[in-house]
Amino acid sequence: MTSEVTALARPESLEKPAYTELKKRGVKVVPADLKGPQDTLVSLLSGIDVLISAIFFGSLADEIPLADAAKRAGVKRFVQSAFMVVIPPRGVVDFREKKEDILNYIQKLRLPYTYIDAGWWYQLTLPRLPSGRLDYALPVYNSEPRLGVDGNVPSALADIRDVGRYVARVIADPRTLNKRVHVYNEVLTRNQVYDLVEKLSGEKLERKYVCLPIPPRDGSLFLITEEEITSCIQAARSDLEANPASLDAFGRLSTNQLLLSWAIRGDNTPEYAKYLGYLDGKELYPDFEFTRFEDYVKAALEGTAKGVYQGGE
Amino acid sequence: MTSEVTALARPESLEKPAYTELKKRGVKVVPADLKGPQDTLVSLLSGIDVLISAIFFGSLADEIPLADAAKRAGVKRFVQSAFMVVIPPRGVVDFREKKEDILNYIQKLRLPYTYIDAGWWYQLTLPRLPSGRLDYALPVYNSEPRLGVDGNVPSALADIRDVGRYVARVIADPRTLNKRVHVYNEVLTRNQVYDLVEKLSGEKLERKYVCLPIPPRDGSLFLITEEEITSCIQAARSDLEANPASLDAFGRLSTNQLLLSWAIRGDNTPEYAKYLGYLDGKELYPDFEFTRFEDYVKAALEGTAKGVYQGGE
Repeated sequence: MTSEVTALARPESLEKPAYTELKKRGVKVVPADLKGPQDTLVSLLSGIDVLISAIFFGSLADEIPLADAAKRAGVKRFVQSAFMVVIPPRGVVDFREKKEDILNYIQKLRLPYTYIDAGWWYQLTLPRLPSGRLDYALPVYNSEPRLGVDGNVPSALADIRDVGRYVARVIADPRTLNKRVHVYNEVLTRNQVYDLVEKLSGEKLERKYVCLPIPPRDGSLFLITEEEITSCIQAARSDLEANPASLDAFGRLSTNQLLLSWAIRGDNTPEYAKYLGYLDGKELYPDFEFTRFEDYVKAALEGTAKGVYQGGE
Repeated sequence: MTSEVTALARPESLEKPAYTELKKRGVKVVPADLKGPQDTLVSLLSGIDVLISAIFFGSLADEIPLADAAKRAGVKRFVQSAFMVVIPPRGVVDFREKKEDILNYIQKLRLPYTYIDAGWWYQLTLPRLPSGRLDYALPVYNSEPRLGVDGNVPSALADIRDVGRYVARVIADPRTLNKRVHVYNEVLTRNQVYDLVEKLSGEKLERKYVCLPIPPRDGSLFLITEEEITSCIQAARSDLEANPASLDAFGRLSTNQLLLSWAIRGDNTPEYAKYLGYLDGKELYPDFEFTRFEDYVKAALEGTAKGVYQGGE
């Protein structure tokens, strides 16, 4: 079975290198304005079986007209932009609620869907080594190693390079239609990550427990309880309410809420996903060959890993 | 296995006949103030395995401190007040969203739960016969027979007397833990209901398609399209915003939203419940003996049915 793949691109992005690359690989690239006329969108989506939204975080609301058009066009499966750690649908991370709102909208439409969460990326998981030899693979904003509470909170991780392969399995699987699905590679605590990196690098890591990752960066503020991080979240929320355009406040709010969820509450686990009604990727695809975290760390130490969010992108 | 049953009652309701009746049947009745101190609630709930909330519609928010206390007390299954027709979690019926908010709160707490919807009651389903012989069994506000669109929209029905027996099965079933469950007796369209009542009564029914059930009661307004009922919903919402204490506006809003959901959109079906992730009661309990709608209609025509919402209660 061969599949024809079409990429919808914002008109102003059509000439970007990413799309040139896709075209070389046989992908049909077509311009689409999600804020434009519904009829145009509907005809673009006609004949499409599965629609995967990889929409920008700040544009989630544009999935509403996209879902409307997909319903009218008869799309057989809509995969909204989720691809995150497992988080309670409401009450912990503000932007997670936006995704639940969109899912609830899809459900109101009776549009066939799959909601996929896919672990925290290995590529955002490495600590900074004293020698600096991992710096090349770290994201620009990863100024501090962060551990939750005592470092013993488990969290589901995946290699970003495996996510697409998981998604390819999920969207061809009738068992996952109209379901939430949790795919991930390995479940590790921060202490397990640190232990492994220490063992493989031969370097000793200072273990700082959850700290505020966005300024203040003087290292003086270490948050170790839910109450403390909650007060930081409230401060960020107040700042954001006072200045809704503040990227700093938004970043602090989101980052601290994410930390609260995965590093303190311990939401990002297969057990909690099951409780929330997700199907478990390990049970669905026991044969799936994934990159082990140990192999990713070895490659990173050898200088051959590729990072994400590295500024140049 | 015997079960010990405790009923929590509002202190001011302790002497009501319903509780006297429960006490006669061996139920332990204890006063509980959901707005009172958490510690008291926690100790009341200690040792309770399953908590079933049958809280008044207008007091749903009190389930939040109840859930908090249940979590602390180690309750093994929390059944919130749902027991409704199947409705999309958000975007169609305002008060359904409140129930989803409470479910999402329970999920944030990681309190074990079961969410049960249980069909539209037979007792609210009978049309008024020209002879008046069914009037004794109709609810006081059921002034008009109502059909959705062309009367051919299916809706899942249950006899109120079967609901408790379904719940008893559901709460003892490990398969339903942390799940949504849809139990119901039969799926019928309004035309099927009318056909059956005509056949068994020998009377002819005028078939009026969806009409506004709350004033105006002059019978002049018959709503037959989604657009028309949506405009009535918007009018009721505006009235409610202008006067938040208006029970009339609240009643029109809720009743019209419910009609839109079950009578026009056709949400209250086993198929839609499955799409929304519910387990199906027919698959869980194929041996369950339920009252057939035909038998309920026969009893009603014989004068032996018992109605609900009859004013005297």
